[in-house]
Amino acid sequence: NRRLFRSIKVGWLMVHEVLIKKPLFICAAMKPDSVAMMELGGLHKQGAVCIFGTGNFGRSLGFRLLQAGYEVTYGSRHPGKSALLPKGAKVTTHEEALQEAQVIFLAVHREQYGFLASLSPALEGKVLVDISNNVRRGQYPESNAEYLRKLVPGAVVIKAFNTISAWALQAGGLDANRQVLICGDCASAKQAVADIAHGLGLAPLDRGSLRAASELEDIPLQLFPLWRLPLRLGAGLLAAFFTYNVIRDVVHAHVTDGKDRSFRIMISLANKAFPDVALVMLSLCYLPGAMAAVLQLRNGTKYRCFPDWLDRWMLCRKQLGLLALAFAVLHVLYTLVIPIRYYVFYRRATVYVGLMQENKTLEFNNVMAWRSDAYLSMGMLGFALFVLLGITSLPSVSNSLNWREFGFIQSKLGHTTLLLCTAHTFLYGWDNFLQPSAYKWLTPRSYMLALVVPCVVLALKAVLITPCVDRAVGRIRQGWEREGKGRAPEDNANNHLPLIL
Amino acid sequence: NRRLFRSIKVGWLMVHEVLIKKPLFICAAMKPDSVAMMELGGLHKQGAVCIFGTGNFGRSLGFRLLQAGYEVTYGSRHPGKSALLPKGAKVTTHEEALQEAQVIFLAVHREQYGFLASLSPALEGKVLVDISNNVRRGQYPESNAEYLRKLVPGAVVIKAFNTISAWALQAGGLDANRQVLICGDCASAKQAVADIAHGLGLAPLDRGSLRAASELEDIPLQLFPLWRLPLRLGAGLLAAFFTYNVIRDVVHAHVTDGKDRSFRIMISLANKAFPDVALVMLSLCYLPGAMAAVLQLRNGTKYRCFPDWLDRWMLCRKQLGLLALAFAVLHVLYTLVIPIRYYVFYRRATVYVGLMQENKTLEFNNVMAWRSDAYLSMGMLGFALFVLLGITSLPSVSNSLNWREFGFIQSKLGHTTLLLCTAHTFLYGWDNFLQPSAYKWLTPRSYMLALVVPCVVLALKAVLITPCVDRAVGRIRQGWEREGKGRAPEDNANNHLPLIL
Amino acid sequence: NRRLFRSIKVGWLMVHEVLIKKPLFICAAMKPDSVAMMELGGLHKQGAVCIFGTGNFGRSLGFRLLQAGYEVTYGSRHPGKSALLPKGAKVTTHEEALQEAQVIFLAVHREQYGFLASLSPALEGKVLVDISNNVRRGQYPESNAEYLRKLVPGAVVIKAFNTISAWALQAGGLDANRQVLICGDCASAKQAVADIAHGLGLAPLDRGSLRAASELEDIPLQLFPLWRLPLRLGAGLLAAFFTYNVIRDVVHAHVTDGKDRSFRIMISLANKAFPDVALVMLSLCYLPGAMAAVLQLRNGTKYRCFPDWLDRWMLCRKQLGLLALAFAVLHVLYTLVIPIRYYVFYRRATVYVGLMQENKTLEFNNVMAWRSDAYLSMGMLGFALFVLLGITSLPSVSNSLNWREFGFIQSKLGHTTLLLCTAHTFLYGWDNFLQPSAYKWLTPRSYMLALVVPCVVLALKAVLITPCVDRAVGRIRQGWEREGKGRAPEDNANNHLPLIL
Repeated sequence: NRRLFRSIKVGWLMVHEVLIKKPLFICAAMKPDSVAMMELGGLHKQGAVCIFGTGNFGRSLGFRLLQAGYEVTYGSRHPGKSALLPKGAKVTTHEEALQEAQVIFLAVHREQYGFLASLSPALEGKVLVDISNNVRRGQYPESNAEYLRKLVPGAVVIKAFNTISAWALQAGGLDANRQVLICGDCASAKQAVADIAHGLGLAPLDRGSLRAASELEDIPLQLFPLWRLPLRLGAGLLAAFFTYNVIRDVVHAHVTDGKDRSFRIMISLANKAFPDVALVMLSLCYLPGAMAAVLQLRNGTKYRCFPDWLDRWMLCRKQLGLLALAFAVLHVLYTLVIPIRYYVFYRRATVYVGLMQENKTLEFNNVMAWRSDAYLSMGMLGFALFVLLGITSLPSVSNSLNWREFGFIQSKLGHTTLLLCTAHTFLYGWDNFLQPSAYKWLTPRSYMLALVVPCVVLALKAVLITPCVDRAVGRIRQGWEREGKGRAPEDNANNHLPLIL
Repeated sequence: NRRLFRSIKVGWLMVHEVLIKKPLFICAAMKPDSVAMMELGGLHKQGAVCIFGTGNFGRSLGFRLLQAGYEVTYGSRHPGKSALLPKGAKVTTHEEALQEAQVIFLAVHREQYGFLASLSPALEGKVLVDISNNVRRGQYPESNAEYLRKLVPGAVVIKAFNTISAWALQAGGLDANRQVLICGDCASAKQAVADIAHGLGLAPLDRGSLRAASELEDIPLQLFPLWRLPLRLGAGLLAAFFTYNVIRDVVHAHVTDGKDRSFRIMISLANKAFPDVALVMLSLCYLPGAMAAVLQLRNGTKYRCFPDWLDRWMLCRKQLGLLALAFAVLHVLYTLVIPIRYYVFYRRATVYVGLMQENKTLEFNNVMAWRSDAYLSMGMLGFALFVLLGITSLPSVSNSLNWREFGFIQSKLGHTTLLLCTAHTFLYGWDNFLQPSAYKWLTPRSYMLALVVPCVVLALKAVLITPCVDRAVGRIRQGWEREGKGRAPEDNANNHLPLIL
Repeated sequence: NRRLFRSIKVGWLMVHEVLIKKPLFICAAMKPDSVAMMELGGLHKQGAVCIFGTGNFGRSLGFRLLQAGYEVTYGSRHPGKSALLPKGAKVTTHEEALQEAQVIFLAVHREQYGFLASLSPALEGKVLVDISNNVRRGQYPESNAEYLRKLVPGAVVIKAFNTISAWALQAGGLDANRQVLICGDCASAKQAVADIAHGLGLAPLDRGSLRAASELEDIPLQLFPLWRLPLRLGAGLLAAFFTYNVIRDVVHAHVTDGKDRSFRIMISLANKAFPDVALVMLSLCYLPGAMAAVLQLRNGTKYRCFPDWLDRWMLCRKQLGLLALAFAVLHVLYTLVIPIRYYVFYRRATVYVGLMQENKTLEFNNVMAWRSDAYLSMGMLGFALFVLLGITSLPSVSNSLNWREFGFIQSKLGHTTLLLCTAHTFLYGWDNFLQPSAYKWLTPRSYMLALVVPCVVLALKAVLITPCVDRAVGRIRQGWEREGKGRAPEDNANNHLPLIL
């Protein structure tokens, strides 16, 4: 049992310590507070911790550690000049500061690691927690933590706390619910750091050996990695649809009639591009799922990798959907301000006055009434469902759903949303699909183009939910394999974990 | 002290192990990594874990375990053919796989448990973690875990991880904040599984003995259990109000004037039903609280159970409120599109042209201006507060409130919202309440019906917040009991924990 | 090593216990379940816990403890009359109840602590967990826990669980993710309580010695402490802008023309005040950051405290922003209902009829079309970004961002939002800034006043992001100090931790 052995090792270590008066860490269990505990007879003491560096992170960490009952000693080049340190902390030279602590937090920039070389003997057997981050990715060939290990080979280097911000540490309070990713080569040193993280009310998570350090150092430098592809796609689609509409509306009117309709760019044309992009992106959320099912049907097994692009596509479906929602929100806003626009006021005045001058009354058109109400209500119901999908993808909401509920919402409600939005667009188009006048310069209206992908997705889905196909897919997803297929031996398959949903 | 005894027991076990070379689990403490730790001298090793089954869950679990530093060995019927397994995992036969591990995760369907019978001797003393789920509730008379215990009586069966989805395990990353519910009859085996869950960055939660397994197996099969009643109620109310309005508007016009007003169904009538349902459901949120207070006043004590239906009603107040909010959102959307509708365009044209033809100018009606602005602003303020209530009921927001704050928002702001929405409806009605023409076929307008429940709730609340009644309720809620009442002896009272809010 | 010493101490204690049959707690390690564990041979038993008090909290806590496998015994004055207690709990007198348990939860009001004096001998060495709260702050000179320590000096008093509501405990289920703040003078007793909190699926957090108890007792009595300042500011600004507009619009019209325009108060004037307040408050979010940078530039170091008012201002930026968002939402709602208002209907009818009577057609004004579309689209884009800022400030969303992402959203997107909203206001104003007619009674329109602060902020920001200034600020924030400045020795600096963002 690890604990017993730890206990015995550490018991021995403590004897050793008493004898030669030097803390030692041989990668055995280490509770930083062991000596303190004994001496103080169990008073509120979590043990001594040392922090090198009095910058923002060093101060915030010290503040939190003091709050949690640790003895905090700062090591500083200018102990006399250190200001703004949390109350209750000691400040001394680096050499002195590390005497009593087994765990040293290194809160300085990599560029300043040099001073540690001279401390090497004193750091022998200590746990050195590297919390540093770089300014940009790939700044150095090796991770800061691995560089530190080379610099101070006698210490046990642990990478941790670099994904936590000084701000989160200090704010703490009631909503600090953050993971502390830890990596390092010594399990018990990691445990010691994990215990401290626990003591601060944080959730430690072991991320493996020190080789993972460069990965951990990249995490705080990431800027929405999963959003890149969807954002680019959204921007591309928006530019395409917008340009297309500008050509069909503004340029066409200018060329054929010589009219200046450029004022329409701001709202009218934007409000044609937004819903088109939203509809295409929403359907792109559901296309990869359908394609995966088709692939599995063709392969006759689920134990065959999906192509890489499909995997990557599936991983960013949530982001695709939320971006589609953003465009849908813009579409709703741009639609609701229609009656406030000057242009609309002008147009209506023209119609009313025109009617009067020709001494006509407007004939009530029952079909028009049905059509306008139908496409509006489809759109509003679709939008309401879409917002519901967005709300359930908030982390705290989706965490409170079990997977049957999550699947129900994301699949059933998602496809219903797509169906409603597609119906909204068809009803909006109404008989324009058949009228030659809708095709200026032989080009269809942009919403007709936007309908292509959703129609494909809905058709695929309609096939997939027919009982016989559904059963076949269900069996495959439960592990059944078509005879004669067998499992293709795949060497490097482990990188391509298939999607589960 | 448990730990010492564990240590000693396990120390002995380890000697035992060394001697007879067979891992043994006698329901004592078990850190799966003890042997590995010693042999590898403290390198990053969390110990050996075995997974039976190479399906989605097995793969995802293995992936996460490997990430957290465990040695993972898969047991498979066809070790040579297993594809897609995470890198670093070993695959071998079931017999071999379980040799080194103390904890075996069983990631196969109940239907395939048969093969375990032959492994019984090897499983003696091991911890067998049943993570299986069924396809529907009540599929089998006993839970999978209890069935497993009968099948392999020598193993310690723990039910755990079945409420976690393979997807959540694999995605992991920074937002995995999920509870692992664990049940079983052996505390230390549960602790071992809890330690693994901790190691994966999850939050283990002990749910008692293995008898709780069937409850745990039902959790992933639930589909919004608390939403059922509110959803049914909402659907029922919507159908009732909608039908009522169809009869009053469309059928009445058809019967009396022969006019076809069916186009009004899509938006006009839907937009009469939505606000009515929203108002009724919002007031139904606050009715049970008022009724509970009245009941407590009548009983003169809070130590008397509420009737069952009241308890159930109180438990789904949040869902009632959120559903009411959904209807309110639809009402707002349907209202804001009014000026875009063809019918409204036609109606206005008719009015304007009519004015012209009669050569009149529209007389400014100051009362109409006040009325329209008053009901609109009441409605908008009520809606804004309603949205605020919805936001504060998001798990992450409500978790960051203390109960005084939560109570303030849900009670004070909630009743203010109800008051504003009721005022909105009254101002919308204005003098229609008194005009006989509003009562077609002697029926009142639907919003007049919808006002009944909110008025009752607000009247009750008005009584309850008068100083004397408020003081009486307050005293009762702090434990005071009216003389002569005493506490009724209740046998089975423990099922009826009274609501706290 | 603490654990070994604990083990040995406790081992001895247990022998002691067996000999003199009296549980003893000498501030050594204590697992409340040690004896039970041994006797029951490792069956599912977490040990015995005692609860004094059978009120809501006592019942809910007992319910949760029983669920987690603890043996729960209630101590009551009237053991025979206690109703509604959770199933499985024993109820007995106080004296008997505390026999078997090492941890006693005290779930009674401070006013009833008296009975504990007589129990003093039996409580010797036990852990007494004070969970009480007061009705209002500063009700008593010392905290309840410290009062309790005086009352029962032999017991180890721990303050804990008072920040958890009975409701949260009972509801439990899948979303109980709450911190249990613990303070007390004995580390191992705190550890015992922390272990229980862990066992209930909660997150214990050590908050120091028992002196922190009064702080902990204040937490549940706080009512949005960080919202106070922003709310007051919002209310003040709203009142100021509203009054200003009432004077300029209603009073001015009444005085100069004798017209009654009071109906405009409800929507028109409210909708002038809302956007003004929203714009000012949004810019007040970003002003302190800019001021801090200017201060740091002037000081030439970041190791100088900000003035107190700036610190406090910076701490409530999130609340300022969310309140600004609320006003922006109201502005959007109030704007979108414009076409439904009676007054607007009347105005348009007047215009149309007027046009007809003068037999004119409305001339299309291209500039007006551009202007109206430009300010509307700026406003809508700004609002959409603003909503995005609001969503990312939800705890669960902001927790899932790393600090580079959080900074990007709050700073880059935030300033873009402010820029868009300011542009929206300028475009709305258009040439009114130059027209004397806009200045009734020599006062500018309210939006012109509202533009002052955002313009200052944007100008400051524009200076701060010029390359040379940006570099200087960047160097200072990385720790660089201007020569000759040095660090001012500050005695009590530790209370003024500077903001990090």
